[in-house]
Amino acid sequence: MKMARNITPREKDYSQWYLDVIKAAEMADYAPVRGCMVIRPTGYAIWESIQSQLDERFKETGHVNAYFPLLIPSSFLEKEAKHVEGFSPECAVVTYAGGEELEEPLVIRPTSETVIGHMYSKWIQSWRDLPILINQWCNVLRWEKRPRLFLRTSEFLWQEGHTAHATREEALEETLRMLEVYRSFMEEVLALPVLTGEKSEGERFPGAENTYTCEAMMTDKRALQAGTSHFLGQNFAKAFDIRFQNKDGELEYAWTTSWGVSTRLIGAIIMTHADNDGLVLPPNVAPVKTVILPITPDQNLLQEKILPEAQKILERLKKILGANRVILDTQFHMRPGDRFFYHLQKGVPLRLELGEAEMKSSHLRAVRRDTGEVVNISFDAIEREVPRLLENIQNTLYRRARSFREENTYLVTSFEEFNEVLNKKGGFIKAYFAGSPEDEKTIKEATTATIRCFLLNEPTEGTCFYTKKKGGKLAVFAKAY
Amino acid sequence: MKMARNITPREKDYSQWYLDVIKAAEMADYAPVRGCMVIRPTGYAIWESIQSQLDERFKETGHVNAYFPLLIPSSFLEKEAKHVEGFSPECAVVTYAGGEELEEPLVIRPTSETVIGHMYSKWIQSWRDLPILINQWCNVLRWEKRPRLFLRTSEFLWQEGHTAHATREEALEETLRMLEVYRSFMEEVLALPVLTGEKSEGERFPGAENTYTCEAMMTDKRALQAGTSHFLGQNFAKAFDIRFQNKDGELEYAWTTSWGVSTRLIGAIIMTHADNDGLVLPPNVAPVKTVILPITPDQNLLQEKILPEAQKILERLKKILGANRVILDTQFHMRPGDRFFYHLQKGVPLRLELGEAEMKSSHLRAVRRDTGEVVNISFDAIEREVPRLLENIQNTLYRRARSFREENTYLVTSFEEFNEVLNKKGGFIKAYFAGSPEDEKTIKEATTATIRCFLLNEPTEGTCFYTKKKGGKLAVFAKAY
Ligand SMILES: [Zn+2]
Ligand SMILES: [Zn+2]
Repeated sequence: MKMARNITPREKDYSQWYLDVIKAAEMADYAPVRGCMVIRPTGYAIWESIQSQLDERFKETGHVNAYFPLLIPSSFLEKEAKHVEGFSPECAVVTYAGGEELEEPLVIRPTSETVIGHMYSKWIQSWRDLPILINQWCNVLRWEKRPRLFLRTSEFLWQEGHTAHATREEALEETLRMLEVYRSFMEEVLALPVLTGEKSEGERFPGAENTYTCEAMMTDKRALQAGTSHFLGQNFAKAFDIRFQNKDGELEYAWTTSWGVSTRLIGAIIMTHADNDGLVLPPNVAPVKTVILPITPDQNLLQEKILPEAQKILERLKKILGANRVILDTQFHMRPGDRFFYHLQKGVPLRLELGEAEMKSSHLRAVRRDTGEVVNISFDAIEREVPRLLENIQNTLYRRARSFREENTYLVTSFEEFNEVLNKKGGFIKAYFAGSPEDEKTIKEATTATIRCFLLNEPTEGTCFYTKKKGGKLAVFAKAY
Repeated sequence: MKMARNITPREKDYSQWYLDVIKAAEMADYAPVRGCMVIRPTGYAIWESIQSQLDERFKETGHVNAYFPLLIPSSFLEKEAKHVEGFSPECAVVTYAGGEELEEPLVIRPTSETVIGHMYSKWIQSWRDLPILINQWCNVLRWEKRPRLFLRTSEFLWQEGHTAHATREEALEETLRMLEVYRSFMEEVLALPVLTGEKSEGERFPGAENTYTCEAMMTDKRALQAGTSHFLGQNFAKAFDIRFQNKDGELEYAWTTSWGVSTRLIGAIIMTHADNDGLVLPPNVAPVKTVILPITPDQNLLQEKILPEAQKILERLKKILGANRVILDTQFHMRPGDRFFYHLQKGVPLRLELGEAEMKSSHLRAVRRDTGEVVNISFDAIEREVPRLLENIQNTLYRRARSFREENTYLVTSFEEFNEVLNKKGGFIKAYFAGSPEDEKTIKEATTATIRCFLLNEPTEGTCFYTKKKGGKLAVFAKAY
């Protein structure tokens, strides 16, 4: 395989490699407004695939979609003290509209807890109105001074779930249910192994009582927060007066949650699976799962034999993979090598070549994007073998990523060891921690590493690596995006 | 059938009736920001249904989706003279972001021709890069002083297609192709009969060479512009320098189009099909096509016989209508009449009742939302009869709306007759017109009626009803939303 000349090797310059992969696949561009991006068709198709599959999982867990306004009165943000402190520095503010200066400035939503809280207070009267299980797909804006495509952009696309419940238990259950929806989606669809856990106080969503997170390791060994689910307690219910009459006729504040994932997931896919040739997409999220390439210099053979056979195979594969999930490449003005590279750099998981030799032996030459491995598939066996190969690619990508994370995760018991691992090896550091928020801050300032989460399902306690106190909980530290 | 007490009769106050229908179905609310709306789950599910079915038609005609930024530098708008004149008075302007005053104010997109033009000029170099066939689903903002839910709101959801072509003919073909996609979608899915035609100069999209439109008649006999497709000529290509090298190696400006429909379509559905009991949804767009209502005061019978049978029927119907397209009502704390009304006011096309009598005779009692007619369906025949009934409802709604339009359309040959029809009857007025834009303006000022369009496929010419000149083209005039 020739080397991709348009992509800087990952080992040489990871940031440049990341941008080169995006450019080669035509996934996104910077927009003329600083910090904003244009998501091009190749990138947007991945978002559509994420969106439709997540949406199905949201609906299966009883959620419905709705749409709340883009603009929020600036006074709304101020109703929850930590919320305004967290978000107002990042806000974009509309001061003129319809040719006039506005009496009250409007903020472009950085997230919608406030305006949704305001509406919920109108919609909820009785316990019969609960739970409310609403999700919204939309754009949000948080002004970004050091933008990076998909990972940190001023405007991004996301979904934000907002639910209201009659009891604390029910709201907490919802928070963890959605964390699990995210985890299983990321692992099963994006082939993205994630650790789930609870954020430390300093890393919580502004206004939340608890924030749960899915943390993934990128191929540069840094952590990426891939999705979060927040238990908001009664904080927003109190700020926005969301009250209901319970079964005994008494007024109570509701318990709320919120949870979201964004176009950042596309960045996570790139930094988990892509290689020095470009994008690699797990089949379950790939908009195009396979491409059929008829190749021959012989125009007669092409028109009379190869193309008709390719068309037949296309129709057969459409039936099992879905109408838009398989394409036939007819870019005959390009050289074969360029045609290979075109799909390879767009991350298509499987390439099916059909030339003179293949016609003679009634086989397709299948080339895997993940390993480069070549497999011959008999025309008869297409319906069985193509899905089987795709499943194998999916599993291989997941296992490869999980092994990489495991190989780069270390348990440490002292701050000395912590520093050694961080400086010499990088990766995830597991350690029992019982320090204060102040200790956490000191560690961050000294090392740039942060607590990614306290692991869920790790009931053991141990001696704190930093304070040497008993009763430390198992935390994962890492340098993060 | 009891009268809906929560809905003002249409004959008494059409505007109030419209709002009452929306409120009773819980489709939308005004947001705390003036002119903006919250689309509630019932309303949003209709938008999702519109979106998925239109998107399929866009993809079948070769289009792909992408996402362009919300914020546009204000200088961009100024590059096309008519465009800035048309849109800048309606714009919302961001002057602060990230805690600082911006050097250049940013406008929230009222439409995206400018920023997309800017990107196309970077993406297009050669004739091989053409055509570009991109669509975007997003929110836009046009400041509205007299808002009306779904019809005129400051923020609304829509899709905007933007294409670039090598030749004038190809771009014109695309403009008309998308007009036809809109027409067939509106007629087949929304049961919305529309007239298609060309806008007069005064009613064109700012910056377009030609605007084509789908015009529907609402039940108050006023016209509603339901979708438009614009041939932009080379205006935006020149303003944003979209040039390509043709096959002879010469630089040429591209030819562009744009086309859009919005959440306004939901307003059109209401004002075409809803009645004094509330919303009526055509089955092809209805998120819930049918509801099964187990009804009996006998708790034993309910638990032991009726509910298990209802569950079985639910599963059978899910298989043929889709998993989320049929629901089972278990709101047993409500009175039967309230349960009927609940679904009726949400517009569910068909109600399937199952009580003691129905169990005995092994029939469902099916009640049509469009006519109130009752049909008995044998348990054995559910798979055949339910889809047949739904199809019949769809056709009935379409034919009813078309008849209404035809009964309220008049051909006039003089301005006197024009005024008489407009004042005494209302509706659509067909008339040959050869007047100037100035004449059109005078007619509008005198009557508030406007040219909705010059009809496509009407090659005949006639004497102008207003100027008495020869060579008039057949126009449709009406008072409009
Ligand atoms: Zn409020
Ligand atoms: Zn430009």
